[in-house]
Amino acid sequence: MKEVELTYRVPYADTDQMGVVYYANYLVFFERSRNELMRSLGLTYKEMEEKGIGLPVLEAHVEYHSPARYDDSLTIRASVDGFEGIKLRVKCEVKRGETLLVEGYTLHVCLDYKQLRPVRPPEWFSDLLK
Amino acid sequence: MKEVELTYRVPYADTDQMGVVYYANYLVFFERSRNELMRSLGLTYKEMEEKGIGLPVLEAHVEYHSPARYDDSLTIRASVDGFEGIKLRVKCEVKRGETLLVEGYTLHVCLDYKQLRPVRPPEWFSDLLK
Amino acid sequence: MKEVELTYRVPYADTDQMGVVYYANYLVFFERSRNELMRSLGLTYKEMEEKGIGLPVLEAHVEYHSPARYDDSLTIRASVDGFEGIKLRVKCEVKRGETLLVEGYTLHVCLDYKQLRPVRPPEWFSDLLK
Amino acid sequence: MKEVELTYRVPYADTDQMGVVYYANYLVFFERSRNELMRSLGLTYKEMEEKGIGLPVLEAHVEYHSPARYDDSLTIRASVDGFEGIKLRVKCEVKRGETLLVEGYTLHVCLDYKQLRPVRPPEWFSDLLK
Repeated sequence: MKEVELTYRVPYADTDQMGVVYYANYLVFFERSRNELMRSLGLTYKEMEEKGIGLPVLEAHVEYHSPARYDDSLTIRASVDGFEGIKLRVKCEVKRGETLLVEGYTLHVCLDYKQLRPVRPPEWFSDLLK
Repeated sequence: MKEVELTYRVPYADTDQMGVVYYANYLVFFERSRNELMRSLGLTYKEMEEKGIGLPVLEAHVEYHSPARYDDSLTIRASVDGFEGIKLRVKCEVKRGETLLVEGYTLHVCLDYKQLRPVRPPEWFSDLLK
Repeated sequence: MKEVELTYRVPYADTDQMGVVYYANYLVFFERSRNELMRSLGLTYKEMEEKGIGLPVLEAHVEYHSPARYDDSLTIRASVDGFEGIKLRVKCEVKRGETLLVEGYTLHVCLDYKQLRPVRPPEWFSDLLK
Repeated sequence: MKEVELTYRVPYADTDQMGVVYYANYLVFFERSRNELMRSLGLTYKEMEEKGIGLPVLEAHVEYHSPARYDDSLTIRASVDGFEGIKLRVKCEVKRGETLLVEGYTLHVCLDYKQLRPVRPPEWFSDLLK
């Protein structure tokens, strides 16, 4: 399955008063890795939207094992975890070195922007995921 | 079960270029409602931390049914959804009027800040939840 | 001059590892107060945008006197500080009780969304500010 | 004068419903570049804090010339713009290619964390800035 990795340096902005990354920010990390996943597939999410297709989030799930901290250099990994009919599932992991800090997934629906309704993805998109 | 509701006005800051609230921000909404839930129990989360007890998040789950938009006046509801041993589960819902937009939960562990390890909550806390 | 005040409770999300509100978040507080300023003028910013007029930010300035903290109940005040030609200046203050924590301003230009260029505000808007 | 540059890819999270980067987020970009500026000086901000010295922000100023957008690859540049007595001024610029989008500065005070008061920076820090 398609998989991509990116490196991310944690700014002060991402931390909270416990001295760790605030829990909602991992969903932004997930998004950053999904963007790179699409880019690695040969079509950026931006280009996809310009073709009239979007992938809004239906569901997000995060499990927090160990906290990330300020100035950590994190590895964020995204992989296609399933694609059936009109739904795409992306798995994400956040690591510091070999330590798994956070994992989870997002579930997306393929949306036609013009008709504003869920659609089977066009062939060019299904082909990218193969 | 204990339950609380708060009203929240969506700023531009919470939106993204699709013209809707960005998906990670609902976890901040959830936090806002948990804060008010604690306050309604008679002890703020701040006071709880001053007593050396915290409730870090182990797991977060969000289901997105319909988008919130800029300047919406949202109702965010939190309720205690389970409390067994050392884990607390809080259910959250985000509504605009009668329309359910987003729902989900967070799972927390009761943590002793001095020993930095999970503990059974002190009696005063269990009593609050009853 | 037109002036408005709102109350805001600081969530964990707004703090950083110094245990204070992260410096960028005050610009979100400023936005929240500008929204209420517009509402108090009789036309929300949302309605203004629907009429094809926006007020993008040209300049922002913030002075940090004393930090806001988690669970603080803040008072955020916005007032029209000047309106000449096509530019609007809004002054903002953030207080905890009587203590001034942060002050600053934002400078906006009146923008016609259709022509995508700065314009003299329509009479109905200038009238609101009088 | 010491200067550093970093590259940053804009996620959806940073945008707002106007389809551009929300104005407060540039202060986070500024922070990212300051972190790299410190690292390039031979001491990370994290290490500095561990030595008991911090550089809280006294003042922030931003001028918005042209908007950054989703998926833009931005260049963020920070440089030491002045250092007198106990105050440090850092200048920041955000560019897309050769186009200057946003510029501004932050003013910091050198703070002793133990005494919680402004101090002349220790010699090792002044030496770094030379």
